[in-house]
Amino acid sequence: MTQTPLQTDVAIIGAGPTGLFAAFQCAMLRLNCLLIDVLPEIGGQCVALYPEKPIYDIPACPAVEGAQLIANLEQQLAPFNVPRLLKHRLESLSGHRGDFTLGTDKGAHIKAKAVIIAAGAGAFGPNRPPLDGLEDFENSGAVQYYVRRKADFEGRSIVIAGGGDSALDWALALKDKAEKLYLVHRRDRFRGAPESLRQLDEAVENGQIEKIVPYQLHALHGQNGALEAVEVVDLEGNTRKLHANTLLPFFGLATDLGPIARWGMDTVRSTIPVTPSSCETSLPGVFAIGDVATYPGKLKLILQGFSEAAMAAHSIYPIVNPDQALHFEYSTSKGVPNT
Amino acid sequence: MTQTPLQTDVAIIGAGPTGLFAAFQCAMLRLNCLLIDVLPEIGGQCVALYPEKPIYDIPACPAVEGAQLIANLEQQLAPFNVPRLLKHRLESLSGHRGDFTLGTDKGAHIKAKAVIIAAGAGAFGPNRPPLDGLEDFENSGAVQYYVRRKADFEGRSIVIAGGGDSALDWALALKDKAEKLYLVHRRDRFRGAPESLRQLDEAVENGQIEKIVPYQLHALHGQNGALEAVEVVDLEGNTRKLHANTLLPFFGLATDLGPIARWGMDTVRSTIPVTPSSCETSLPGVFAIGDVATYPGKLKLILQGFSEAAMAAHSIYPIVNPDQALHFEYSTSKGVPNT
Repeated sequence: MTQTPLQTDVAIIGAGPTGLFAAFQCAMLRLNCLLIDVLPEIGGQCVALYPEKPIYDIPACPAVEGAQLIANLEQQLAPFNVPRLLKHRLESLSGHRGDFTLGTDKGAHIKAKAVIIAAGAGAFGPNRPPLDGLEDFENSGAVQYYVRRKADFEGRSIVIAGGGDSALDWALALKDKAEKLYLVHRRDRFRGAPESLRQLDEAVENGQIEKIVPYQLHALHGQNGALEAVEVVDLEGNTRKLHANTLLPFFGLATDLGPIARWGMDTVRSTIPVTPSSCETSLPGVFAIGDVATYPGKLKLILQGFSEAAMAAHSIYPIVNPDQALHFEYSTSKGVPNT
Repeated sequence: MTQTPLQTDVAIIGAGPTGLFAAFQCAMLRLNCLLIDVLPEIGGQCVALYPEKPIYDIPACPAVEGAQLIANLEQQLAPFNVPRLLKHRLESLSGHRGDFTLGTDKGAHIKAKAVIIAAGAGAFGPNRPPLDGLEDFENSGAVQYYVRRKADFEGRSIVIAGGGDSALDWALALKDKAEKLYLVHRRDRFRGAPESLRQLDEAVENGQIEKIVPYQLHALHGQNGALEAVEVVDLEGNTRKLHANTLLPFFGLATDLGPIARWGMDTVRSTIPVTPSSCETSLPGVFAIGDVATYPGKLKLILQGFSEAAMAAHSIYPIVNPDQALHFEYSTSKGVPNT
């Protein structure tokens, strides 16, 4: 049975930091909007992937953890009571600028005058290592791809795999909690901030982290989901068994636009090209902002997503209010703009 | 006598919010920079013009007063010890991309590889009403153009003149402090947020604010700088004397690029056109960000200035490091980017 469609001015797809700030910007311009996300809570990657990881370059927020950033954005948005549709994945888009219909996997329909795609890395998931029996260890929690609560790793013997930012930062963050911590990478060199690399050297010297390089993951040993050892192999085929009950592989995110890729707008791999300073996609009335949006010179920073959110909201204003000029306002205006 | 030139990678002209965040972004990319401002303290308009006025649309900062925003930005920048040259007005620019020399009115010289102009409204000053004897009343403090401390207006009888955001907001903010408050405007209608307009109606009904419309300023009465009355006139030439010891005219800012206008880059009135997503001006190696910069679709919001600061810093990186590729980093990287 078809449900009564939800009516809004702007359908915002994705309730991560960029989507939340887009909702705030729409509300400031007195545009109704609806936040839609496939996840069961707002916050996107910040909450799902790194709630306890500090973020350094949000203007005027010297060091804020992902979850706190989302709490701040939610507080800013709270006075406007923007409705949310969570645990819904967008499947279909039809119609045109000023009159779109969107459909979700749960059978909800949304009528909107404009659409903002703030889908981040899309339907993101971790890149999983190709190891036999991996799923059993994932189900038991012996293999995990995210650190949601550092305290959960107290006293564990841990293998962290990967050579980038995440592997390095989490090795440093967990070294004081773990009973034993191995850091496995297929190269000698790690990619990370100079200060983090210095801290790694120090932790290796102190015996808090054992570097296993150049090695890569080879096999998992244990049964019924209880991990006993992680077997690694070097380039010549020599293997080593590392005794550990936990494996944390940090091999990046697999990004996928999912059904959005079939809505008819131009896409480049998992990103959507937009016109700079309006953020409109090749589909008139559909806008893309944040990590999912691309243009020449694009920087993938949360603060660029915030700026793009403001540009998209202002570009949408005349779609919703075709007969009204918008007096752009300086940031000190009170809550809503002059009209 | 010529002083030894100061050497830096990036000369940042203007230490308002946008200039401060540009310094932070440069520091994150390990570019040396120097902040230069004609004012005696950092903060630009936020501190000089509205330290106690709340700003609503800084992402993740639900309502922050101008002075607090600057304090937050300063705290974020503090670990990098960026040098400052205050009370210096930039006069001259010579050289080219990678090798500029700037000169100030105090005889300082700065050698820089790139320049970021974050001059806001330029050398800003208030638009002053054309009234006889105005200067005496300005010197005595009877006529003021900024409200730096609300407490200073306790018990005064005040005429506020103007019909925009500032006149309206300050009338509402001072109505409980003033003994008497007149609001003079040459039209019947005020331009402001709907919520502010509602509050004005309420205050007029309660007798806290007396609206004098449509009238404009005509003459000042008093002697030796002591204001006794403000005379206003309507369109038919009828005059009224308002007994008051304080006049606050809010007729906007007079903007002026000053010597920057003669540096050879394209300018449009008091703004500088830039290439979007690099923020480079028509002069290679010279960038402009924040309110002073313009491009099609430009929004004059502080958060756009922040985003432009990031773009300019990243565009400058290869000028300072011609042989190194920059690995753009997500916002969660630690303090400095991977190199």
